Amino acid sequence: MSILITGIAGFVGVNLAQALLNKGIRVCGVDNLSRGTLQNMATLRENPLFSFTQVDITDSEAFIKVCEEFAQQEPITECWHLAANSDIPAGVSNAAVDLKDTFMTTHVTLDMMKKLGITKLAFASSSAIYGDHGTTTLVEDIGPLLPISNYGAMKLASEAAISAATESFLEQAWIFRFPNVIGIPATHGVMLDFVRKLKHTPDCLQVLGNGTQQKGYLHVEELVDAMLWIRAHAPEKRALYNIGAEDDGVTVAFIAEETVRVAQSGARIEYGQGNRGWVGDVPRFVYSIDKLKKLGWNPKLNSTQAVQKAVRQIVEQEQNG
Amino acid sequence: MSILITGIAGFVGVNLAQALLNKGIRVCGVDNLSRGTLQNMATLRENPLFSFTQVDITDSEAFIKVCEEFAQQEPITECWHLAANSDIPAGVSNAAVDLKDTFMTTHVTLDMMKKLGITKLAFASSSAIYGDHGTTTLVEDIGPLLPISNYGAMKLASEAAISAATESFLEQAWIFRFPNVIGIPATHGVMLDFVRKLKHTPDCLQVLGNGTQQKGYLHVEELVDAMLWIRAHAPEKRALYNIGAEDDGVTVAFIAEETVRVAQSGARIEYGQGNRGWVGDVPRFVYSIDKLKKLGWNPKLNSTQAVQKAVRQIVEQEQNG
Repeated sequence: MSILITGIAGFVGVNLAQALLNKGIRVCGVDNLSRGTLQNMATLRENPLFSFTQVDITDSEAFIKVCEEFAQQEPITECWHLAANSDIPAGVSNAAVDLKDTFMTTHVTLDMMKKLGITKLAFASSSAIYGDHGTTTLVEDIGPLLPISNYGAMKLASEAAISAATESFLEQAWIFRFPNVIGIPATHGVMLDFVRKLKHTPDCLQVLGNGTQQKGYLHVEELVDAMLWIRAHAPEKRALYNIGAEDDGVTVAFIAEETVRVAQSGARIEYGQGNRGWVGDVPRFVYSIDKLKKLGWNPKLNSTQAVQKAVRQIVEQEQNG
Repeated sequence: MSILITGIAGFVGVNLAQALLNKGIRVCGVDNLSRGTLQNMATLRENPLFSFTQVDITDSEAFIKVCEEFAQQEPITECWHLAANSDIPAGVSNAAVDLKDTFMTTHVTLDMMKKLGITKLAFASSSAIYGDHGTTTLVEDIGPLLPISNYGAMKLASEAAISAATESFLEQAWIFRFPNVIGIPATHGVMLDFVRKLKHTPDCLQVLGNGTQQKGYLHVEELVDAMLWIRAHAPEKRALYNIGAEDDGVTVAFIAEETVRVAQSGARIEYGQGNRGWVGDVPRFVYSIDKLKKLGWNPKLNSTQAVQKAVRQIVEQEQNG
């Protein structure tokens, strides 16, 4: 018995795979290595319970062939579908990016599962499916769902396709909606940007925007823990759960200050203008994880603690890298 | 100035085009004629304000070329995107059908509009995006959205992509969610099935299911009227409106009896078992059009009247056809 993970070489994939291996579960993974890397999987690949094959899963025939090969070794009992575009601005300027990497990956994953008779699917969705609801708390059954980025749109399209599949061949689906996740291996995001900028210009950190943009942050270790909790405990056929920090979040200015403190104490911070990151970025939102808490899971770190931990880890990653 | 309609040769397209032409508006239309027909457009094509080119709009290059040719004659000021799969069971058994015909048509339409600088879009969505909410009244902002057919999933995916586009290049989008629409030219649906069955076996109408399945029905003339009303009056950048009958609907048995009465008086009706049409069909739902009524539009026919009118029209269509 083994679990298949798509997008395994990415940030969440690597952490999820490690957690499953730690439980003694056999893991097979695929990734096109367009954003994920072999280096991210260095530790995983030392584990005899781990298999990896490079394939672009939107190449449906090649993907199915790889999965059939995995299944010949050990039956695949469920799939965790994480493969997606992670560069949201890229998808805003060109809708084809999220069409292929965020939605078509889901379509072909469902097609593969139907053909191979895999009936359980866990899916990494996003808070971006909600769109901009202003100050209204985002609970799982809020509507209407009007995403403002192609990334959010194609995550919602994926949820919809999974929901339809659950009416026909899927026995159960777990859909996790989460906002900003941080930690290592960091491949993108504001913290990595700051650390790298400071490496380049150690005396001054230039911040795009005025630093007042505020978001809740979840550490990837908490995310994985919550996903596995939902997988183990949620009773619904279509289990839909927000995962996130409970607090109001921290500002970009706090992240900048924390990065400077850890990486380059004394560096000056210079701010730009405006508090909106890019087209398609919801500037501020209130996230509810009450449903998840009722299921028995609570975050151990708040946004401040998650940022502090991640900044330390990313600075270390970049010093060693 | 002209309006572009995709899927113009289909049931709704033909009725919409006629209504626009009646207002003296120039209409250019595209259709791949996979389900729509030239015959449906016979009257439209006599109008000098009407242009039609056959093209499969998922062939993006060919589609853009056709639109550029239309635009050279008269600038296109808005697009009404109606092209979609209309065979819901076909899409349930093969997800590729709705992927291409219901969602990719939307993706390429948005791409075309971005390239040609067309900033206003009206879109024919569906009540299928809601999924099965049991007896809860379906209002526009209900959640979660968990469609149970690939048709519903790909309509929701389309709404999501349009919503994201409205954040970047689209100035305004009108999204119409409607359930069962009836009238002529009928190309599919229970009434046409019944009329054709009766033509084949005039003494007996065999009904799949036990006839108790109940749905609200909207006549296509009312649908077009409501869509144009919303287009003219809705103030929202993303205008999302249910359109439908207000009543509890009528049963399949009523439709069978009405069809027999009009087409083949005295024929026996034989029922099968079960009250669910097919996988992906929501058996019964309560639809709210309060938002539309607040905007000032009210249906003139209830479901019973709409069915009576459509049955008469379809019987006549089939006698002449």
